[in-house]
Amino acid sequence: MTIKLTVSYDGTDYCGWQVQKNGKSVQSVIEDAVFLLTKQKVRVTGSGRTDAGVHAVGQVASFCVENCSVPPENFSKALNTLLPNDIKIIKSQRAGDNFNARKSAKKKTYRYSVYKSDIALPLFERYYARIDQKVKLDFEKMESAANLLSGRHDFKCFNASDGGAKSTVRTIYNIDIRQTERDGVSVIDFYVCGNGFLYNMVRTLVGTLIKAGEGKMGKEEIIKMLNGGDRSLCGKTMAAKGLTLYSVEYVE
Amino acid sequence: MTIKLTVSYDGTDYCGWQVQKNGKSVQSVIEDAVFLLTKQKVRVTGSGRTDAGVHAVGQVASFCVENCSVPPENFSKALNTLLPNDIKIIKSQRAGDNFNARKSAKKKTYRYSVYKSDIALPLFERYYARIDQKVKLDFEKMESAANLLSGRHDFKCFNASDGGAKSTVRTIYNIDIRQTERDGVSVIDFYVCGNGFLYNMVRTLVGTLIKAGEGKMGKEEIIKMLNGGDRSLCGKTMAAKGLTLYSVEYVE
Repeated sequence: MTIKLTVSYDGTDYCGWQVQKNGKSVQSVIEDAVFLLTKQKVRVTGSGRTDAGVHAVGQVASFCVENCSVPPENFSKALNTLLPNDIKIIKSQRAGDNFNARKSAKKKTYRYSVYKSDIALPLFERYYARIDQKVKLDFEKMESAANLLSGRHDFKCFNASDGGAKSTVRTIYNIDIRQTERDGVSVIDFYVCGNGFLYNMVRTLVGTLIKAGEGKMGKEEIIKMLNGGDRSLCGKTMAAKGLTLYSVEYVE
Repeated sequence: MTIKLTVSYDGTDYCGWQVQKNGKSVQSVIEDAVFLLTKQKVRVTGSGRTDAGVHAVGQVASFCVENCSVPPENFSKALNTLLPNDIKIIKSQRAGDNFNARKSAKKKTYRYSVYKSDIALPLFERYYARIDQKVKLDFEKMESAANLLSGRHDFKCFNASDGGAKSTVRTIYNIDIRQTERDGVSVIDFYVCGNGFLYNMVRTLVGTLIKAGEGKMGKEEIIKMLNGGDRSLCGKTMAAKGLTLYSVEYVE
């Protein structure tokens, strides 16, 4: 039986989603909880790896169990009693036998959050990246850059040297930039939806949008970057803590 | 010379504002930083104590230093290099010789934040209190209760047994209730502004507003509670982590 989990976590204290030799991973903590519950050693597959410090509102994971007496929809409650406060299962359900959280994923949405302040504010530092107050961002320029980056492109220039992806072609369906205020502080949320992302791609994409918003990168540079330009053209890779895997969509 | 500080902190890992025998307090950490900077042992007075786990966007504190070469407006930057990530000085300035962050305070605003979910969500648990999804809150009833509680009243029934206040009369200038959504989750922020608050008063006040919103407490019960009723009439005292000291106002 294949179980599909929707998982939320605060990634601050983890070495990322994936099991690693050193450090505590979200995956291993969930696998341990599944073992305590079912006495079965399973591999819990996530829709994708998230890096150290990256959070999730709705990561999706799947695993197979044999002859288990726990009804699929009860896994969430049962696992939550075994999981720490910074990892919780939002929903559990039975999935088709061929379902695989990674291979079956059709769309993923990430949110990247920044706040503007010259001081590293204690109530923002956990879930937001900081940009200096003096950085003036032109929203029209960011929107224009977002439109150019959307669509099917070869994102080779965004590929980290250790990315190791076979193909670097991805489709970005939508980039939604929302500016709000919290505690008198200006906050910008970037929602990026695509069919998949290269290693560090969302963080570099947001760095590129900010570079464009600062007026340091025009339409021509972005087109050049997408047409085989090298990584030095992109904006900087933003800090992990501002990134949240927001949702994953599947064709049911 | 009297220095006025505006301070933000994440109270999660502190035993509260006030210096205590056991546990790390926000006050003692700031006093230690002032000592490292000025080599003077000072008492840093806060506008009021905040309990263990309570946060601050704009706590105000003051202290006196003698013959100090650091310009008042530079204390913030200098102290921030000495303070941990969860306590930062937003602003420092010189205040009049008679200024005392506690005695001179005219108005204080607290924010209390709750979210509705049956699961303790990792990305909310640090700064919000949770209420169950099944709790139906009638906003008109909460607004009516807020109106009744606003004004000058004897809040004796809200006074914790260990509150030790001489007078229990306080004025609430305003209660602003805002409902929003984050990550698909319903969030309610209660902004309570008053001339001062008894120990635990804001947390019990919000518990009372929620009790009213649930329809478990009508106009008559609230009036009875304010007219010398005992504590059992009030709503429950909400968890500390949802509380944030938002701002403190002074007559300049």
